[in-house]
Amino acid sequence: MSLIVMKFGGSSVGTPERMERVAKRIIDRQSEGHDIIVVVSAMGDTTDDLIDQSKKLNPNPPAREMDMLLTVGEQISIALLSMTIHGLGGKAMSFTGWQAGIQTDQVHGKAKISDIDPQKLRQALADGNVAVVAGFQGSDENGQITTLGRGGSDTTAVALAAAIKADLCEIYTDVDGIYTTDPRIVKNARKLNEISYDEMLELAHLGAAVLHPRAVEYAKHYNVKLVVRSSFTQNEGTIVKEEANMEQGVVVSGIAFEKNVARISIMGVEDEPGVLAHVFGALADRSVNVDIIVQSGVEGGKADFSFTVSGDDREKAIATIESIRETVPYRETTSEDGLVKVSIVGAGMVSNHGVAATMFETISNLDVSIKMVSTSEIKVSCVIASEKLNEVVIALHTVYGLDASEQAFVGGPSERR
Amino acid sequence: MSLIVMKFGGSSVGTPERMERVAKRIIDRQSEGHDIIVVVSAMGDTTDDLIDQSKKLNPNPPAREMDMLLTVGEQISIALLSMTIHGLGGKAMSFTGWQAGIQTDQVHGKAKISDIDPQKLRQALADGNVAVVAGFQGSDENGQITTLGRGGSDTTAVALAAAIKADLCEIYTDVDGIYTTDPRIVKNARKLNEISYDEMLELAHLGAAVLHPRAVEYAKHYNVKLVVRSSFTQNEGTIVKEEANMEQGVVVSGIAFEKNVARISIMGVEDEPGVLAHVFGALADRSVNVDIIVQSGVEGGKADFSFTVSGDDREKAIATIESIRETVPYRETTSEDGLVKVSIVGAGMVSNHGVAATMFETISNLDVSIKMVSTSEIKVSCVIASEKLNEVVIALHTVYGLDASEQAFVGGPSERR
Repeated sequence: MSLIVMKFGGSSVGTPERMERVAKRIIDRQSEGHDIIVVVSAMGDTTDDLIDQSKKLNPNPPAREMDMLLTVGEQISIALLSMTIHGLGGKAMSFTGWQAGIQTDQVHGKAKISDIDPQKLRQALADGNVAVVAGFQGSDENGQITTLGRGGSDTTAVALAAAIKADLCEIYTDVDGIYTTDPRIVKNARKLNEISYDEMLELAHLGAAVLHPRAVEYAKHYNVKLVVRSSFTQNEGTIVKEEANMEQGVVVSGIAFEKNVARISIMGVEDEPGVLAHVFGALADRSVNVDIIVQSGVEGGKADFSFTVSGDDREKAIATIESIRETVPYRETTSEDGLVKVSIVGAGMVSNHGVAATMFETISNLDVSIKMVSTSEIKVSCVIASEKLNEVVIALHTVYGLDASEQAFVGGPSERR
Repeated sequence: MSLIVMKFGGSSVGTPERMERVAKRIIDRQSEGHDIIVVVSAMGDTTDDLIDQSKKLNPNPPAREMDMLLTVGEQISIALLSMTIHGLGGKAMSFTGWQAGIQTDQVHGKAKISDIDPQKLRQALADGNVAVVAGFQGSDENGQITTLGRGGSDTTAVALAAAIKADLCEIYTDVDGIYTTDPRIVKNARKLNEISYDEMLELAHLGAAVLHPRAVEYAKHYNVKLVVRSSFTQNEGTIVKEEANMEQGVVVSGIAFEKNVARISIMGVEDEPGVLAHVFGALADRSVNVDIIVQSGVEGGKADFSFTVSGDDREKAIATIESIRETVPYRETTSEDGLVKVSIVGAGMVSNHGVAATMFETISNLDVSIKMVSTSEIKVSCVIASEKLNEVVIALHTVYGLDASEQAFVGGPSERR
């Protein structure tokens, strides 16, 4: 007998029919002989509706009261899902975050889980119940209700799985699993059977947001075995674990991309200690999220550097840089938007040569110019013009052997990326 | 400085405009120099909507899960009301039932308050906050969420007022206060300035349900001074307290009535010990609520008795009696619906003669026949045909001096009712 955590998102329980299908699935899983903890999000538009209601009364409500309001969404879901399980002849008990023993710090709106006391859940399971837990919420040491912020229900599921030493944490979603790339762009994109935590992190951060990065980090830290699978089909899904299967020479696991990227360059900056810290500190203070940062060489004591931000933040970023010109003098700034970032991700890159070179060559063969490059142990990213996105992704998907029913082999023997 | 509990029902906060008016009223009251605890119900149709949602998934949901679901309604109210108070420049903190320290027994759906630990509320008040508490809910000793059942928010308000030794508990509602009778029937019905707990209990039980009887009982037990007043006007309202003002010879305080009453009579029952217990036990087992019970004399070892039930329960009551005929043999049953119960209520009756006689005479002068009579220390009830209701109430209202701008004096000197 295993202990399994099953997590369902808001769209999986958005209608009575879906709620019933989820309840059946839970009962089936339990009748296979497993102990089942379910984590569920707020149904469909509940959260947005509550936010709308609050905005009418106070456009800037206190975070504590917002948590009080929004946690209601998951509380409705757990109650209704438990009732539905009972209605189908099963046995279930619902638990709010605080009832499930989920303790957090005091940061309303984006609290971090500090501790979990799973005693009540264990008792409910021992009594033959499915334990249905509200995702996204907990309480601090003073009994204040908190929410975990974005991706909160995924995090609740993984954290519970870690605390209660579950054998498996299943993330049910509206896709079949993790794909080599977006099937809307590459028709023969392939579902991955396995992927490592690190690869999943790179993919998720890069826009394939099936599973929240924070939950993946948590899973990696506590070595919780994840499965991402569809709540609508019985397909196997994708396993996310420490060491994914690499025996078949799979070097690149997937192609990710991020749209609406802008590049900003600062030219002729005095090459002094602390300049970068000053620039990016100022941007962080104004909540401008910087992604890739590239500094080319220093010449005559002056440096040029470039970075990317979301296209929406371009104006704000430029204004910020202009505002600090007195402290950080520079010759000029340039910027460009209408860009995308394309990334190849794969744990196998570490031990394979020429992976990056193949990427650059493939892109250049399409006569597409690479504006910026960034690399990590398991990822290479290129910034290109957005109108070239589809053809680049399709070509990369093929060249790295990711197309369905092809064997993967990648990279030349001579060059280390 | 006083400590005041203000209770607002669901219709008082049903729209953003009303919510704002309530928030202003609370801030005004606080700025008079009082500490304020607010108890609020679920907004408008929230509870009904949640019940509808649940019925679609399970027509007979477990009571525990129903409590989990329904408590959400008040949680939304407290969060939104607190936000609104903040939006208007005030300071407020919301509290669920369990956060407010409201402990109950374990009877989901109709829990009784067992204890209140007002420590967190005191702290919030000391910090200058309005404490906004969810009505209708608490938690048991195991941290299970419970609801208090009907009239729950009134009870929450009174229980909190008792526990925290408030100087006053204000029940805001959509009427100005307690009236001598229903102003829809008697145009010059008069608002009472004061009324005793016992009178209020009789009036509330009899259908003038502005304030739930359970809350009044609680107030009487802990001697909590209540005020019933309008959330829409600044009028003074009606004070409910131990000894109401009787100096002006007010004997009857109000005329109450209950519609849709049915009479059931059982004729020729063996006059043996335990017969009544058996009959009314069987009715209670099937949740038939019996009101007036009258037994006329015993003749030849056989008794006749009659009782009233809601018209909706008439069929069920008769079926129940037929089902126990083997155990409790009788000659026949008769029944009649389309009846109403009219009651005069007044603490002054105890020490005044002839009050009941005046009632009977007034009714008989209208050529209306009295089907059943029941009396208590502070109440006389007559069951009559429903089409006679209005003229009887109007006549009684006048004869007992309750019409607006009349002096009240009632009852002859010679007869003790």
